[in-house]
Amino acid sequence: MKKILILGSSGSIGVNTLNVVRKFPDKFKVVGLTVNSRIELLEQQIKEFRPEFVVVTNESKARELKSNIGNLCDVLSGNDELLKAASERDYDILLGAIVGFAGLQPTLEAIKRGKRIALANKETLVVAGEIVNKLVLEHNAEIIPVDSEHSAIYQCLVGENLNEVEKLILTASGGPFLNKDKSLFENVTVDEALNHPNWKMGNKVSIDSATMMNKGLEVIEAHWLFGLPVKKIEVVIHPQSIIHSMVQFVDGAIKAQLGLPDMKLPIQYALTFPERLQNDFKRTDLPVINALNFFKPDFDKFECLKLAFEVIKVGGTAPCILNAANEVAVEKFINKKIKFSQISQLINKALDKVENHSDPDIETIFECDKKTREFLMDAGF
Amino acid sequence: MKKILILGSSGSIGVNTLNVVRKFPDKFKVVGLTVNSRIELLEQQIKEFRPEFVVVTNESKARELKSNIGNLCDVLSGNDELLKAASERDYDILLGAIVGFAGLQPTLEAIKRGKRIALANKETLVVAGEIVNKLVLEHNAEIIPVDSEHSAIYQCLVGENLNEVEKLILTASGGPFLNKDKSLFENVTVDEALNHPNWKMGNKVSIDSATMMNKGLEVIEAHWLFGLPVKKIEVVIHPQSIIHSMVQFVDGAIKAQLGLPDMKLPIQYALTFPERLQNDFKRTDLPVINALNFFKPDFDKFECLKLAFEVIKVGGTAPCILNAANEVAVEKFINKKIKFSQISQLINKALDKVENHSDPDIETIFECDKKTREFLMDAGF
Repeated sequence: MKKILILGSSGSIGVNTLNVVRKFPDKFKVVGLTVNSRIELLEQQIKEFRPEFVVVTNESKARELKSNIGNLCDVLSGNDELLKAASERDYDILLGAIVGFAGLQPTLEAIKRGKRIALANKETLVVAGEIVNKLVLEHNAEIIPVDSEHSAIYQCLVGENLNEVEKLILTASGGPFLNKDKSLFENVTVDEALNHPNWKMGNKVSIDSATMMNKGLEVIEAHWLFGLPVKKIEVVIHPQSIIHSMVQFVDGAIKAQLGLPDMKLPIQYALTFPERLQNDFKRTDLPVINALNFFKPDFDKFECLKLAFEVIKVGGTAPCILNAANEVAVEKFINKKIKFSQISQLINKALDKVENHSDPDIETIFECDKKTREFLMDAGF
Repeated sequence: MKKILILGSSGSIGVNTLNVVRKFPDKFKVVGLTVNSRIELLEQQIKEFRPEFVVVTNESKARELKSNIGNLCDVLSGNDELLKAASERDYDILLGAIVGFAGLQPTLEAIKRGKRIALANKETLVVAGEIVNKLVLEHNAEIIPVDSEHSAIYQCLVGENLNEVEKLILTASGGPFLNKDKSLFENVTVDEALNHPNWKMGNKVSIDSATMMNKGLEVIEAHWLFGLPVKKIEVVIHPQSIIHSMVQFVDGAIKAQLGLPDMKLPIQYALTFPERLQNDFKRTDLPVINALNFFKPDFDKFECLKLAFEVIKVGGTAPCILNAANEVAVEKFINKKIKFSQISQLINKALDKVENHSDPDIETIFECDKKTREFLMDAGF
């Protein structure tokens, strides 16, 4: 019986994690759930999964929940309690599904306790990959990726030797604008950008898929997760999202992991690895799917993807600047403050103007994140 | 430095094995080569690879070679010497690339010595799978498959647990007649049947691909090699032959191995496993290949495939009868004695008339093979 703490239980990954846990009542016990503010959904989750505690970072929402559920479980509030949940509570696996930079700190706390982290928060590795890797080694922690691409690569590497990898091939659906001309990016609406062809995801990740920054962040994540230089990481457009990613070995053999676009599978794998448990999830029927297609990505059209490759080469806090600028820009786009085409422009500006620090410690990273956000606010977009 | 004995060095697999060995002069040493009669090619191979001995089963061809090459190496002849090569000579890996039932006996000799067998001769497992598996266990031998499909599955299973396999998915190109109407099978010529769209192979295997008996034999081979019931083995048509086969696990994840249709890769893997060695073979470029397609196989059209699934369920010597009848029928078709559509008819007749023995020992299998051939000769087709 593994005890699970789910950070971000009201998001798409959190909900799917509970969809997995529900299938294996004798294998997993949810000990804690955290959300930012969606207390209606959390209340349902509390009633079904009976965690020992929950954390609602929004304090007024926390009070509201408390008055609704009475003594069903401890209701805590605020960011400090979120961190304390990760650093003090009793659990075996932390499912890190908070979106964005905010997911970094609690993940670090879990690493310092040598826990298994089922990692859906890619920003943890994007902004602080080197530090995270050192801590994982030092504290004998274990990061199992939840992103379908990284889970695919992780699965393809089982029983193989990392020194015999020639390259990683990350597949990308290409998002909703794969076949749209770049000149039309000026007038793309938020609804169009949110309308992903294959995956149902939260707003941030959906917009990141439309700009292909999502794939860029995944390239950086893969770089740190598998310890491979960026020249050994390639992106291939695969519109059907059936092959979740591939590994090419030095003998030329390619291994791929396939499945329907459903996060339940990689989540379950991250919870049960190295075991695979029988489930009744829908199976992939290749004759019905009929065709899998592949194209080279267009780096001119999807400038965010190009920028992500560039910041790995620059190193230091450049990935942190890229990530913070992207978070700000995506929020501005969702709030209709900027055009879709301005997302990459803002990131470019931040990368130009915010100072890069090489070999940063964790404080420098937090400071860099803050400075980048301030710069883009001051710049008055 | 591994010492290799190649049985069937003048065939497509034998030649490709030497193409691999040529790339790794410090890893492999060819100690022996055997052919049936193609001594011109063998002479070139002797001059390049300098084996200690060769066996030419055709005795007059052996004499001819001897007079041509003088003392370059020992030239032996006849089937007994072929068996003695496998049972007495000093080698680490036997590359078993003799086509058909004839490959069984020398493979058994290598198994009894606890050798690694890089197995391209699928008939060994088709006709005597249960016996072979017992001997492998008893003598601590090791069979690494060379067939691209089985190599793919072997690679996908590395680091995984066989108990967690839900099914094997063998891919099949569908051969030259994938899109030909069955009614036209009456008038198919030998040249048309030999003209495989993706693979360059010997005549027997090419005709087997046209009837899809090749895939049927591979299903039986997979059944014994991986110890899985036939209901866990599926065939999917994949005309491009890029995904060489797949494994679906109990959690729904599918792993696949991909590569160009080139036997050098699975041969190298069988020689170097568990290592993968860097090579300069052409790489798979998915954006250039562009599309991978999948269809359900048509068991009515490709009756040989249906028969292969049936004989596994019948068991005993039924797979041996199927195989012997197929060998006779294919030879008759190549010699223009029967029509393409009659191949499955002959096999059906043999399965009807030749007595099946359950739980056969190896003598019973040899006898059954002989009886089936005699039956089809006597029947006067």
